[in-house]
Amino acid sequence: MSINRAAAVEYARAHREAFLQELSEFLALPSISTDPAHKEDIQHTAEWVADRLRRLGAQDVAIMPTEGHPVVYGFLPGASADAPTVLLYGHYDVQPPDPLDLWESPPFEATVRGDNLYARGAADMKGQIIAVLSAIEALHESGGVPVNIKFLIEGEEEIGSPHLTPFLKQHREMLSCDFSLNVDSGVLAPDLPTITYALRGLAAFELRVSGPAQDLHSGIFGGVVHNAANALAELIAGMHDKEGRITLPGFYDKVRPLDEEERAELARLPMGEDFWLAQTGAPALYGEPEFTPLERATLRPTLDVNGIQSGYTGKGTKTVIPSKAVAKISCRLAPDQDPEEVHQQLRRYLEENAPPTIRWELDYLAGAYPVITDRHSPWMQALVDAMQRVWNKRPLFKPEGATVPIVGFMQRILGVDSVMAGFILPDANLHAPNEKLHLPTWYRGIETFVHYFVNLVENK
Amino acid sequence: MSINRAAAVEYARAHREAFLQELSEFLALPSISTDPAHKEDIQHTAEWVADRLRRLGAQDVAIMPTEGHPVVYGFLPGASADAPTVLLYGHYDVQPPDPLDLWESPPFEATVRGDNLYARGAADMKGQIIAVLSAIEALHESGGVPVNIKFLIEGEEEIGSPHLTPFLKQHREMLSCDFSLNVDSGVLAPDLPTITYALRGLAAFELRVSGPAQDLHSGIFGGVVHNAANALAELIAGMHDKEGRITLPGFYDKVRPLDEEERAELARLPMGEDFWLAQTGAPALYGEPEFTPLERATLRPTLDVNGIQSGYTGKGTKTVIPSKAVAKISCRLAPDQDPEEVHQQLRRYLEENAPPTIRWELDYLAGAYPVITDRHSPWMQALVDAMQRVWNKRPLFKPEGATVPIVGFMQRILGVDSVMAGFILPDANLHAPNEKLHLPTWYRGIETFVHYFVNLVENK
Repeated sequence: MSINRAAAVEYARAHREAFLQELSEFLALPSISTDPAHKEDIQHTAEWVADRLRRLGAQDVAIMPTEGHPVVYGFLPGASADAPTVLLYGHYDVQPPDPLDLWESPPFEATVRGDNLYARGAADMKGQIIAVLSAIEALHESGGVPVNIKFLIEGEEEIGSPHLTPFLKQHREMLSCDFSLNVDSGVLAPDLPTITYALRGLAAFELRVSGPAQDLHSGIFGGVVHNAANALAELIAGMHDKEGRITLPGFYDKVRPLDEEERAELARLPMGEDFWLAQTGAPALYGEPEFTPLERATLRPTLDVNGIQSGYTGKGTKTVIPSKAVAKISCRLAPDQDPEEVHQQLRRYLEENAPPTIRWELDYLAGAYPVITDRHSPWMQALVDAMQRVWNKRPLFKPEGATVPIVGFMQRILGVDSVMAGFILPDANLHAPNEKLHLPTWYRGIETFVHYFVNLVENK
Repeated sequence: MSINRAAAVEYARAHREAFLQELSEFLALPSISTDPAHKEDIQHTAEWVADRLRRLGAQDVAIMPTEGHPVVYGFLPGASADAPTVLLYGHYDVQPPDPLDLWESPPFEATVRGDNLYARGAADMKGQIIAVLSAIEALHESGGVPVNIKFLIEGEEEIGSPHLTPFLKQHREMLSCDFSLNVDSGVLAPDLPTITYALRGLAAFELRVSGPAQDLHSGIFGGVVHNAANALAELIAGMHDKEGRITLPGFYDKVRPLDEEERAELARLPMGEDFWLAQTGAPALYGEPEFTPLERATLRPTLDVNGIQSGYTGKGTKTVIPSKAVAKISCRLAPDQDPEEVHQQLRRYLEENAPPTIRWELDYLAGAYPVITDRHSPWMQALVDAMQRVWNKRPLFKPEGATVPIVGFMQRILGVDSVMAGFILPDANLHAPNEKLHLPTWYRGIETFVHYFVNLVENK
């Protein structure tokens, strides 16, 4: 079976321009899942993905409806019948591009500047999808793809995959596999191949506070009513103590303690204070003083305001007491927290701390479980070897602070582990203006996938 | 001189429809001073006012430029040379109408529903200007206006009158007078004639906080950086203690203590807890427990967030750590606070409380001095008598929580006291959607002004 490894790598190198062209086409589709105005764009993007799978030779390609945005499915049979079956997971949706005025080139016109390709979704994760599909094309054109591949490309990852759970439950048979390959992850640096073995969960909320029945003149009524914006600020401020610990009742009860061996492993990663300062541009780091920044960003939970709005913030002054104030708040969850439990903890915090001078409402917008996966499975070891071949060094194992809800669902519903294999860099500006894809790393990623699929059969 | 009193009142009653028609025309002009997009509307409104003064018989009518919006000036000589000279102050600008979707009729189309006229500026204060001009017209058409009147109608009151100080200094001679009549005030209820004798000052700010250099993915960076929105909420929350006292260093040092006699006087006003609950629709009242609601709303200072914005607050979720957050914050000042000193107190609070994990900037947007005026002057007593004639009861004296910066300027620059005489009701929705003018009270106001101008000569 080693016959097509070298030819496929050769093919991948020769076709970089074509792969990049294809990625640019994919990136031109504004598949913003959170905004109903882009419903039609989502549909076009699903059709684009389905076409691409058909051109790869996939069978049973279908755009499968959910109660939200559709899932694209396809099956590519491997060269030998007893080869393992990989369920390849990705998502074709992207985050909104706001604030638009901070983009240096239009978010939906892929633009190469230096070593990077700039566009919304370039890194998260249309670039990763095209990388693995390009590797499959290279194998297909060089004698055949050695493993069976089932494709599951969804359109709601950026809004917490609300309709994927019923989809997985409904299609257990169709999706049966040996393991899932999830290409929505990253490496630490261009010269540091990295494998993600843990993911944080998520619990996202909208909190609305109302005070007086309507906006009031701050001169006439200032001093007798609780301003909704002040009250919301007070509630938010109380959610952390002075050292950055979260105060929701019971919040840390299920957080898995870090053992000394894992802390020693993490300490070997080149991600000290300077790394985080350089990546974020913050004037100083923040958070629980008894943990390192890497531990805080990956295996410790958080609570962040994602947005807040109240009253008048246009030009000049408007001396009003706002009647209403709203905040979007989300928590990243560490193993083994439970998003629904965190929802109840936030609700209890509000019940205990909201004053009688205001009213509040809390909506639970999205939730996902944290996960930790086995570093010693054959599927993981095949990836270690593939990276070793491309980078000429052993990859690092790393926990990831971000959330990939599907990994929790795969474990809970299909009963399979996920191997995380993606090539996003930490400075890729995910979810922010000027999102970018580092092209030299992307090309290495394509070659890693070529080796990986071969390794799955050769190392079997 | 009593000859034209009855005739003028008769004229005023006979011309109510015409006065209302004129007010509707004035209200159709969207003279929003805070928004540069309305510069031309401001100019048209100034021209409209100048035309109206000319039709009243005023001389030297001029639209006088300032570095901001223009002032309209005019002089109407009285029937006798030794009559007192009144400097009539008003403003032709209005607040922005946002949020637009809460208006039941368009804000710049005056609409009568029941006893009220609805429009932005109906109460604050185009309605008050038309009331006093209508009374002057009634006197003019009934034998003559007994006093000399100088008109000073500015266009920047709603943004803190930033260019009126230099204007008053430049035109001291032209504006010389015995006292100023300021018609930007209100009465407690349709059956409770009220005279305002104190006003709060104002200090308005914009506070901007920045954390990381740009918006960050909350999964990848959550736990190591201080979220700008969380940090701003924490700074705002710290500006009050648990009982609603303001914590800025030195904030209460110059606040004039209430003496027992004044507190007894205030206790006679029909403005207990129920009044404020009904007016505001708040679930419970807020503020310093050692003062009554009326005291808190008039002779005690405040600190309110007028607006706050950060991150994403559109539909769905966006799990971002915002880089920037902004709040508009304003304080109502009690006698004898100084707005520039409050600015320094807020700056010191931020220097002492802002953590090293963020950066902040503070802009001082506007300031005005609080004032207390003499309840026993002849100009005040003439108003007591005029109200007595129209309502058949003695008016109440009341301190006002809102700010009329010009009153402080009149004292500081022209050396004259102001008599506050206006007819705005507490539920007029000032600065809010569905601003309204109570027409029966407005008609009484017109007649009060007729008697007042006659009283100024008869009681001399």
